[in-house]
Amino acid sequence: MANRNKDDNRPTIPLGRADPTMFPSYQTSPSFADAIADAVRSFKFNCYPPSFGVAQARRAVAEHLSKDLPYHLAPDDVYLTIGCTQAIEIVLSVLARPGANILLPRPGYPQYEARAGCSNLEARHFDLIPERGWEVDLDSVVALADENTVAMVIINPSNPCGNIFTYQHLKKIAETARKLGIFVISDEVYAHLAFGNNPFVPMGVFGSVVPVLTLGSLSKRWIVPGWRFGWIVTTDPGGIFQKQGLVHSIQSYLDITTDPPTFMQGALTQILEQTEEDFFSKILNLLREAADLLFDRVKEIPCLTCPHKPDGSMSVMVKLNLSVLEGIIDDVDFCMKLAKEESVVVLPGVAVGLKNWLRISTAVEFSSLDDGLRRIKTFYHRHAKKE
Amino acid sequence: MANRNKDDNRPTIPLGRADPTMFPSYQTSPSFADAIADAVRSFKFNCYPPSFGVAQARRAVAEHLSKDLPYHLAPDDVYLTIGCTQAIEIVLSVLARPGANILLPRPGYPQYEARAGCSNLEARHFDLIPERGWEVDLDSVVALADENTVAMVIINPSNPCGNIFTYQHLKKIAETARKLGIFVISDEVYAHLAFGNNPFVPMGVFGSVVPVLTLGSLSKRWIVPGWRFGWIVTTDPGGIFQKQGLVHSIQSYLDITTDPPTFMQGALTQILEQTEEDFFSKILNLLREAADLLFDRVKEIPCLTCPHKPDGSMSVMVKLNLSVLEGIIDDVDFCMKLAKEESVVVLPGVAVGLKNWLRISTAVEFSSLDDGLRRIKTFYHRHAKKE
Ligand SMILES: Cc1ncc(COP(=O)(O)O)c(C=O)c1O
Ligand SMILES: Cc1ncc(COP(=O)(O)O)c(C=O)c1O
Repeated sequence: MANRNKDDNRPTIPLGRADPTMFPSYQTSPSFADAIADAVRSFKFNCYPPSFGVAQARRAVAEHLSKDLPYHLAPDDVYLTIGCTQAIEIVLSVLARPGANILLPRPGYPQYEARAGCSNLEARHFDLIPERGWEVDLDSVVALADENTVAMVIINPSNPCGNIFTYQHLKKIAETARKLGIFVISDEVYAHLAFGNNPFVPMGVFGSVVPVLTLGSLSKRWIVPGWRFGWIVTTDPGGIFQKQGLVHSIQSYLDITTDPPTFMQGALTQILEQTEEDFFSKILNLLREAADLLFDRVKEIPCLTCPHKPDGSMSVMVKLNLSVLEGIIDDVDFCMKLAKEESVVVLPGVAVGLKNWLRISTAVEFSSLDDGLRRIKTFYHRHAKKE
Repeated sequence: MANRNKDDNRPTIPLGRADPTMFPSYQTSPSFADAIADAVRSFKFNCYPPSFGVAQARRAVAEHLSKDLPYHLAPDDVYLTIGCTQAIEIVLSVLARPGANILLPRPGYPQYEARAGCSNLEARHFDLIPERGWEVDLDSVVALADENTVAMVIINPSNPCGNIFTYQHLKKIAETARKLGIFVISDEVYAHLAFGNNPFVPMGVFGSVVPVLTLGSLSKRWIVPGWRFGWIVTTDPGGIFQKQGLVHSIQSYLDITTDPPTFMQGALTQILEQTEEDFFSKILNLLREAADLLFDRVKEIPCLTCPHKPDGSMSVMVKLNLSVLEGIIDDVDFCMKLAKEESVVVLPGVAVGLKNWLRISTAVEFSSLDDGLRRIKTFYHRHAKKE
């Protein structure tokens, strides 16, 4: 915020990142922290971890995810990673080979592009359709895929769009992928952060239609992004990944890579088995209230349109209508001026693949969101095109 | 140990790995564990960490290492990593380009070969000379280097050899590297584990002769390999890495990679500033006693020779004299039969680049080492060539 007006003493409102841990309402449960502290103090987990993860921790993830699946995962289906970030790294590195391509959603999460870029993997983009609640444009998936396509990525609940795919839509995705002979990487880092009418359904439910690599982490639901703990899970009851050699490739890669601290693996069972219903439902309520506020307020700001009321994850995409603004060139210009004049930070859509959109985080203190949206409205009025 | 004799009820003696945490004598200090537990319970470190590390933690590493250097490191010289394993990954990935090569020690630490293999980096091996206390064969370094050589790696204190390089030898390494126009990667994961006559001298002392990338971690000295916490440090008072763009490359790589948990970074100052002299000197005494025992006992086992009494790190190389044995083909055969007949596990030298040598870990409970060496002697007598 170097450019911000010097005489603006208001606090900066950060609506740009999906890390709510600075806000008092978004604090993790002390019992999760206790699990870590107990594990490190037990002195039982100071040794090097096994490459694929501590058996008990793998079992804990398998049990946790199996609750929402029509089949039972085994500990061997689970690989523990240093956040979902490392899960993405591992999966994309393992899939890379000269000429191969992968289908990514637009808008999406830029880490996929970055990792494809430093592996031998061409990124091709299919669209998510705002008017259809950000569903996948399956026609564009079919049009993009060829014999060198290895997989398609979906992010559900969606960052940056803030939607949840329905059971029916996930089924169509599975059938499309099956027809194309590719598998699905389902980024479920926001799993269970569903606060609207659509329940969260894991893609692994369709694992017998198409094999699915499910990626997840503690970062979002447990509100501990700094703990860097995630997983890769083969949700593939038919054992196709095993037969195709993908399991072996993942294992070989894990053999030379670094693992999550052993004591964190040791704490995992306790963290995942704690139900903490109050904690989870409190967070969902906060996110729902934030979504309601945002959706209503955006209606009062003529330069913004929110095509789909968010019902999942921690952010939402709103469209910028530049034609009602004076002297604002594009989304980046909007964000720069907004930061400077109003000390409100939002992410320009171009950063997630959609020019002239904005990504706004909803996982912020309610009063901050309220204040931030008011300032955006003021900003609009200052820059509105005169008739 | 699937092959072990069924009627052998003795415990297996693991002399193959450098992870002593299973032994009662090699337990970390509770105060280090407390630092982690306090940090996670403080709720101050649940946010995503910055890509290069939390500023205070980078400062703690800079202060810690500066104590042994003739100049002062800045926090910006330090990048925090998930163990030294990730430090190796980052450095080798950043150096890789088609045609480039890197000089690695033989014997060495196989992670370097593995990482070079999956990057675009040819590994060339220079020798360490057992008769000269495992010093670097600088002639072989000169012979190997060409215009595509980017760096040479040293491991000091040495895994697997168990020696410490003298000040004079390090100086010669620095001068050789300078002449060749390459820089030095100094793996100091065993820093300060020096228990003989040679003191540990960090390679960074010669940073003004040749720029040095120093790699380190908490794993060995603090006896917490499972904590997965390490660092890359540019010990380069002339700022050459900065000018050459290497700093920028490291930073770009760190931008897309995963980081150590924030609360562990938060605990680092407390861990590194605790002097805990008793703890450190107790560990050095244990390692010294183990080295003495091993060196004496090996003299009584005619098929083994220890060319250099270990004075650093946690392992030692001993040479196998196959000519005095009957029916043992090579080091792997020796290790397999030893495991089967005596339930003693040692690493065949071929795993670290030296065929028909053995790597024996000294960081084990004294009584286990004692028992293990007795069993190796028994094994020798059973397989000794009859006159
Ligand atoms: C879609 C998506 N995938 C993966 C990640 C990375 O998750 P983690 O914090 O577990 O590394 C994020 C983080 O924001 C994300 O939004
Ligand atoms: C020479 C050497 N470098 C690096 C490492 C990896 O260290 P860390 O445990 O910090 O990942 C080891 C581990 O044994 C080692 O021996």
